[in-house]
Amino acid sequence: MDGTEYRIKRTWMLRMSHGEDLLAEAGKIALHKGISMAVFSIIGAVSCASFGYYDQKERRYAKISRDGDYEIISCYGNVSLKEDRPMAHAHILFGDEEGSTFGGHLMSPTRIFAAELFLQELDGLQLIRKHDNTTGLFLWE
Amino acid sequence: MDGTEYRIKRTWMLRMSHGEDLLAEAGKIALHKGISMAVFSIIGAVSCASFGYYDQKERRYAKISRDGDYEIISCYGNVSLKEDRPMAHAHILFGDEEGSTFGGHLMSPTRIFAAELFLQELDGLQLIRKHDNTTGLFLWE
Amino acid sequence: MDGTEYRIKRTWMLRMSHGEDLLAEAGKIALHKGISMAVFSIIGAVSCASFGYYDQKERRYAKISRDGDYEIISCYGNVSLKEDRPMAHAHILFGDEEGSTFGGHLMSPTRIFAAELFLQELDGLQLIRKHDNTTGLFLWE
Repeated sequence: MDGTEYRIKRTWMLRMSHGEDLLAEAGKIALHKGISMAVFSIIGAVSCASFGYYDQKERRYAKISRDGDYEIISCYGNVSLKEDRPMAHAHILFGDEEGSTFGGHLMSPTRIFAAELFLQELDGLQLIRKHDNTTGLFLWE
Repeated sequence: MDGTEYRIKRTWMLRMSHGEDLLAEAGKIALHKGISMAVFSIIGAVSCASFGYYDQKERRYAKISRDGDYEIISCYGNVSLKEDRPMAHAHILFGDEEGSTFGGHLMSPTRIFAAELFLQELDGLQLIRKHDNTTGLFLWE
Repeated sequence: MDGTEYRIKRTWMLRMSHGEDLLAEAGKIALHKGISMAVFSIIGAVSCASFGYYDQKERRYAKISRDGDYEIISCYGNVSLKEDRPMAHAHILFGDEEGSTFGGHLMSPTRIFAAELFLQELDGLQLIRKHDNTTGLFLWE
């Protein structure tokens, strides 16, 4: 739980592209801007939703996809390196027309209807995801 | 998805006023402090809750209001200009006494019981909401 | 709703300790780093979940604990002083294997399976929690 200190480098607030996949688009933005470490938040709406639940016993993600139009009630994530490439990791909450909610670990396909991204690049010791034996996840060392 | 870079200008962390409307209060804070661009997060509790769901086919918000006392489990939003005035746009999640949740696009009336706001003003190219033909929403150009 | 301005001081992004209690760990991190004011966000997963709902009439928290493995869909909080000690206050949303969600005011026990913390220390007028007669809560003055 020690960690090292970081500094905020570059900051963006932008509208994401209509029709694109939310997770892929977050990764693309990082790649195109040369970002290897960041935190981000997104609000908006999607026209199909996918998310995962990590089965801690089976050590694998179960994936659920739902067709339909949903609000992005919250989506918070980070960018770090996995196998030398920037990887976006985010958790998301969707809401339907009655305000009922569901969500988990953001997966594809999750199609952007409209989405507003706030992203802050971090400067400091590079965080790298490696396989962790205790959890079966790819975690920062 | 390009966007331009921003810089964090002023930062506030404060208690919002008991009894006021959450969305109106966020807008008032921006107006009083001369803020035209910002991101913010709120946690707390409310004594009535309103939120919207954007119907992507009908191109209008359906509004749901619920009487009762709820936790604000999450509320994340931004401030930008719409028709020359700072406009707060936020998504919110409410929780009841059993931990059941509901939410969407924050609307009024949503009465503050207690609320803690973290807000960061952004410096850079002004984001302005204009009508977007593809979605029917007021989005950043 | 006036508040004073703050400045971001130190920033961390780190992996929290597997098996520890989420709320206690957030408090420990603040204590060990000498942090008395901060905001933070966490995503990850837990292997048991506890949260509270503030009963605004009875003026006390009702606590709910659930065994089981859950995603942390969102967790946003802050650190300030209460009785001279840094106190973490956070709201959390949990998700199960079907994507169903529940949550409220983060309480213990909530056991970390894996958790990624982004924390920013704030510099400025110290926020102190004192008993508030209007709400029965410990709020910033």
